[in-house]
Amino acid sequence: MIPFKLSNELIAQVAAHIENKKDSLLLELLEEVHYADIAEIIDELNLEEATYIIKLLDSEKTSDILTEVDDDVREKILENLSAKEIAEEIDELDTDDAADIISELPDERKQEVILELEDREHAKEIVELLRYDEDSAGGLMAKELVKVNENWNVLTCVKEMRKQAEEVTRVHSIYVVDDDDILKGRLSLKDLLTTSTRTNISDVYIPKVDYVNINDKAEDVAKVMSKYDLEAIPVVDEMKRLVGRITIDDIVDVIREEAEKDYQLAAGITQDVEADDSIWELTRARLPWLFLGLLGGIGAAAIMEGFEGMISKYAILFFFTPLIAAMAGNVGVQSSAIIVQGLANDDLKGSIKNRLIKEMLLATLNGIALAIILFIVVLIWKDSFLAALAISVSLIIVIIVAGIIGTFIPLFLDKRGIDPAIATGPFITTSNDIFGILIYFMIAKLIIGI
Amino acid sequence: MIPFKLSNELIAQVAAHIENKKDSLLLELLEEVHYADIAEIIDELNLEEATYIIKLLDSEKTSDILTEVDDDVREKILENLSAKEIAEEIDELDTDDAADIISELPDERKQEVILELEDREHAKEIVELLRYDEDSAGGLMAKELVKVNENWNVLTCVKEMRKQAEEVTRVHSIYVVDDDDILKGRLSLKDLLTTSTRTNISDVYIPKVDYVNINDKAEDVAKVMSKYDLEAIPVVDEMKRLVGRITIDDIVDVIREEAEKDYQLAAGITQDVEADDSIWELTRARLPWLFLGLLGGIGAAAIMEGFEGMISKYAILFFFTPLIAAMAGNVGVQSSAIIVQGLANDDLKGSIKNRLIKEMLLATLNGIALAIILFIVVLIWKDSFLAALAISVSLIIVIIVAGIIGTFIPLFLDKRGIDPAIATGPFITTSNDIFGILIYFMIAKLIIGI
Repeated sequence: MIPFKLSNELIAQVAAHIENKKDSLLLELLEEVHYADIAEIIDELNLEEATYIIKLLDSEKTSDILTEVDDDVREKILENLSAKEIAEEIDELDTDDAADIISELPDERKQEVILELEDREHAKEIVELLRYDEDSAGGLMAKELVKVNENWNVLTCVKEMRKQAEEVTRVHSIYVVDDDDILKGRLSLKDLLTTSTRTNISDVYIPKVDYVNINDKAEDVAKVMSKYDLEAIPVVDEMKRLVGRITIDDIVDVIREEAEKDYQLAAGITQDVEADDSIWELTRARLPWLFLGLLGGIGAAAIMEGFEGMISKYAILFFFTPLIAAMAGNVGVQSSAIIVQGLANDDLKGSIKNRLIKEMLLATLNGIALAIILFIVVLIWKDSFLAALAISVSLIIVIIVAGIIGTFIPLFLDKRGIDPAIATGPFITTSNDIFGILIYFMIAKLIIGI
Repeated sequence: MIPFKLSNELIAQVAAHIENKKDSLLLELLEEVHYADIAEIIDELNLEEATYIIKLLDSEKTSDILTEVDDDVREKILENLSAKEIAEEIDELDTDDAADIISELPDERKQEVILELEDREHAKEIVELLRYDEDSAGGLMAKELVKVNENWNVLTCVKEMRKQAEEVTRVHSIYVVDDDDILKGRLSLKDLLTTSTRTNISDVYIPKVDYVNINDKAEDVAKVMSKYDLEAIPVVDEMKRLVGRITIDDIVDVIREEAEKDYQLAAGITQDVEADDSIWELTRARLPWLFLGLLGGIGAAAIMEGFEGMISKYAILFFFTPLIAAMAGNVGVQSSAIIVQGLANDDLKGSIKNRLIKEMLLATLNGIALAIILFIVVLIWKDSFLAALAISVSLIIVIIVAGIIGTFIPLFLDKRGIDPAIATGPFITTSNDIFGILIYFMIAKLIIGI
């Protein structure tokens, strides 16, 4: 496959065709292009051009394009469309994508669009999906699925399925329900192909079926599906009635977003920003953490001033504060990141106490190795045994404390129900900087004895 | 669904049954447990207990269990099994999982195991897969797939499919090939169910089919599959012959691993470690980065010594070095993380120059905001206009330089074909610490004039 590559030439060509209103050339140019690729093109066009394309192409294609363009691009394009035009797009979409798009609209428009939807059954299902929290199984699921009654035989089942399957993009499993719509089991398409048409469904279905509850968290659904390698999972309500299904492609998005969020938090970036966002959005995501760092730095300066008396004889102590702060920060980030990742993967076993003891051992080991090097460097450089001893002993203690803080804080946050990932970034670096410098000077003072 | 929860009681119970050799109780206890959950239990047992379970349970189940246990647990269990026992496990696995496990064995054992494999066709396919780099499409793919000849009709096709489908866990698409095995297109199971049996395959197949080449990188396959929401993709060789297929569950693992690796690098952890790894492994993953930080800190100390002359009159400058270093580090990590993420998502458009200009603007904006606060704090605290000016002006410059370095380095590494993610962690923090402190003192000296 020659992968699609977005080029400036292509974008320029599309823009030129739009300007000259060469609709047929435009249609020809875009005909063979996948909707996900057209979405990339649209992300690069201005709003008028983008709207032009959405209005020009068939809504079967544009509806899919709209699900793939950047959130802010979609918001602006939808502002440019009438409620009826939006409804035409929505009519083409599966219920989950439809609900996602409608939920982004301003409240009054939501209702206008829903009223304009042609397929009333579809509309009802979308309205139902709008009720659920977007981070829950209900918010992820689609209403499109293939279900059969346990009392049917294979022939009825195949007939019914053909009808239902037209609505469903991909059939993974056929779900078996009883007369009350309660999930009883599943059938695979493969089984259906290999069973005689007279057989009763109740004789062939697999009663063991994994499912999630409508209120389960999206993150937990992702864990279940990826742990058990599921490609689709049925969703049941409080009465165990089959209400929808979640497919793996939505879960891939959940996993990606989860990973990106953790990564950004570790790097000191709040909110979901991208390199191409505006300077204003990027500032809002970055400045608060920098401000926290500023406060930490002022705190560190205040601590150092408290030990100003040592500066005339032991200026060298002050020269090593960046080293101490950096080590405290690095160790804190390392240990917190490992804990956060362990929590995310449900990999942590054993008690908090054991974990702290292990981190202490590890930090002591690392600390001693680094302190020996530092001791030799300072001794050779300054020829002061006391200074070298003070700096390297404090380094060991600082590393141990930083490791303990880095291990404890995410575990503590997690127990409190707070996302532990916030503990990996500037939060831990800043607090470790301050603690590190304080401990450093206290121990140095003790050893040197001024 | 009541999700499986690994409890200490369950592990103790399993261990007790093993000790008392209560095989039937053990079989009963584990019968309803999913293999992925049994793998979690085994990860907690000691080697003898783990081997006992593997030898006790049916190889249909244990083969799947072996694919799910921790790498080091698997390695030890396999050491405890004979080549014949391993071959029995391998015989049960799909070719991709089989090849993954065999590739972990020591070279001489590899051959022993392969010779013991019962199904010679299967063995040949596994040997073929062993040839490919594990980070390529060839390394991810399985040989199990359903393919039909374009010259068949639907009836022949269904018959052939039934035969092939027994070998294939999940049928996503039926691939259509010509007499030379060259990929021509695909058919969906759904289409097959809704087409008359007399129809020729060549009349109904969809000629447009996404595929990847056998040498494509795993990361790129993940991008294609998640961009186009594919659940399976065929793999072709250099002659466009169909040689295998990759399913989405393998891609989920690629995405997870990719994200974890980037996250760990950002946190200053090399290698793939987990919280439960040994202290020795964790040290190896963490110490090199800390050593880098140590070198950086010694460099910073040397720079500060060069400006020792200012210490008597402007000790305050030295108190703010941790702040300067922290800000330089934070800004560097923020900007590099955004670039690394943009590169990973193929989201970066526009030239490097434009990106640097944007980061400069952003850094200037953030820098000025923070510098104003710092200026006021220092002025009130020390009542020295010159010191306040020197510290806050240098803060602005340091932030701008840190932003530029953080933007430039990952872009540069990426152009050179080096993973830019290594630029997000201690590497960028350390270099920014040194540059930051150097710039800080140079500018302060210039402003204060000593």
